[in-house]
Amino acid sequence: MDVDAYLAESAARVDRFLDAHVPPASERPERLHAAMRHLLFPGGKRFRPALAFAAAQAAGGDSNAAVPIAAAIELVHTYSLVHDDLPCMDDDALRRGQPTVHVAFDEATAVLAGDGLLAEAFRILLEAGDLAPEVRVAAARELAAAASSRELVGGQSEDLAAGDALAEADVAWIHERKTAALFRAAVVGGARVASSSPATLERLGRFARDAGMAFQIADDLLDEAQGGAREACSLVTVLGSDEAGKRAEALLASALAELESLGEPAEPLRELARFAVGRTL
Amino acid sequence: MDVDAYLAESAARVDRFLDAHVPPASERPERLHAAMRHLLFPGGKRFRPALAFAAAQAAGGDSNAAVPIAAAIELVHTYSLVHDDLPCMDDDALRRGQPTVHVAFDEATAVLAGDGLLAEAFRILLEAGDLAPEVRVAAARELAAAASSRELVGGQSEDLAAGDALAEADVAWIHERKTAALFRAAVVGGARVASSSPATLERLGRFARDAGMAFQIADDLLDEAQGGAREACSLVTVLGSDEAGKRAEALLASALAELESLGEPAEPLRELARFAVGRTL
Repeated sequence: MDVDAYLAESAARVDRFLDAHVPPASERPERLHAAMRHLLFPGGKRFRPALAFAAAQAAGGDSNAAVPIAAAIELVHTYSLVHDDLPCMDDDALRRGQPTVHVAFDEATAVLAGDGLLAEAFRILLEAGDLAPEVRVAAARELAAAASSRELVGGQSEDLAAGDALAEADVAWIHERKTAALFRAAVVGGARVASSSPATLERLGRFARDAGMAFQIADDLLDEAQGGAREACSLVTVLGSDEAGKRAEALLASALAELESLGEPAEPLRELARFAVGRTL
Repeated sequence: MDVDAYLAESAARVDRFLDAHVPPASERPERLHAAMRHLLFPGGKRFRPALAFAAAQAAGGDSNAAVPIAAAIELVHTYSLVHDDLPCMDDDALRRGQPTVHVAFDEATAVLAGDGLLAEAFRILLEAGDLAPEVRVAAARELAAAASSRELVGGQSEDLAAGDALAEADVAWIHERKTAALFRAAVVGGARVASSSPATLERLGRFARDAGMAFQIADDLLDEAQGGAREACSLVTVLGSDEAGKRAEALLASALAELESLGEPAEPLRELARFAVGRTL
């Protein structure tokens, strides 16, 4: 499988949907809508939407049906980046080589743009008339849980509060929430468009958790290789590069093992997991 | 009807539910959860939850079934206050006589507490197993739309951007979004627990819009009577107190007219609307 082509095709599909549903920058309040779109277009690799599509396929469903779920996940991811970049949080001026939202606009607009993106995620998913109400409720419920103070927001909160020397368990606690939770919502949400058994959904949830943790280590290794400053909240810092790399490989193996019974339809999901880890090792 | 008793009973019901479902301050991250609860307990009058309960009754339903909807509305309202108070927005140090969240904690925690409250609203509503999936989808969809950049967040954005001299139409545009949108989500959401006809839901939506606009004028008149600074975004400023008071009375009359066909079960809803406007005139 050509992973780059799969990612590009996934990105094109989710981007078309997002562009059609997120209010245009020409709609009042224009400045707010421009700010909401600033980090959304062009976005990053759209890795989470690709996970949702591949999970729909792995569960025997039509990945097109997962487009609103993939779009909602990407909106939550984008909102979290906008707020994480704020001066009172990580205070980042650049994101993907572009000025962050509070730099390109202003701080209040960045707070409100993040708020708007988060509400938009739920609006878009809950208004997706092609999905059965049960599917919308399940996917939106899991997305809300993943975005909550027990997961995404809680992870960012502990990350900010953490000192310079974190224990391995604390790093894992934070990454489970900042990274793996949204991976899980993408994968389990995508699989919901097929009539998956609870056992399959649980298996996919464990896959996503392990793949997410491996992805985060790979990201930290990439940062290290590019000469980035050592983050306190990184298994590379806590364990060293070699040991962290082995940990990522072990997590990848454990993630892939969860998919064994799913056979050929799970191949795109396997390839995405291998890609996420392999790009840095 | 004793409106104070109705409000107190509504507040007790929604508070019990919120306290049981919002993570306790003893749960990690403790500081974040304490911050989320800071403005939530004790809250304000819980007027929006009371509207949801009264709307459930007006539509012939059981108001107890509307508790998760009422709680979700209150969480969205509370999140919006936490973010509106931030230094980069209205920069308020006090709210309901207590230090605001960014003062009692810190700015990053206030941003994250607001984010957590918003996600929590959807989590709590979508996890409400006693409500049919169709009801959960409809109520959550309307709440997401009310919280979106087209409504609540868009209203706050225009309010911040507005200059010193607003036209009447601009004030109305902002108040439709900052106040009336959440009133409508509360009333229509509450009515969704009964099997209301589309015509009844539309009538209740128009009631809520007019009642919300009247409530906002009454609030601005109260501010004026208490010697508060004149806000640019206020019909009291634009029209003067007398004319604004007449406008509130007209909006109240128009709101009450929408309820005529609903008879006796709509009496609590009527009383709440009269109370909202009457408290200042």
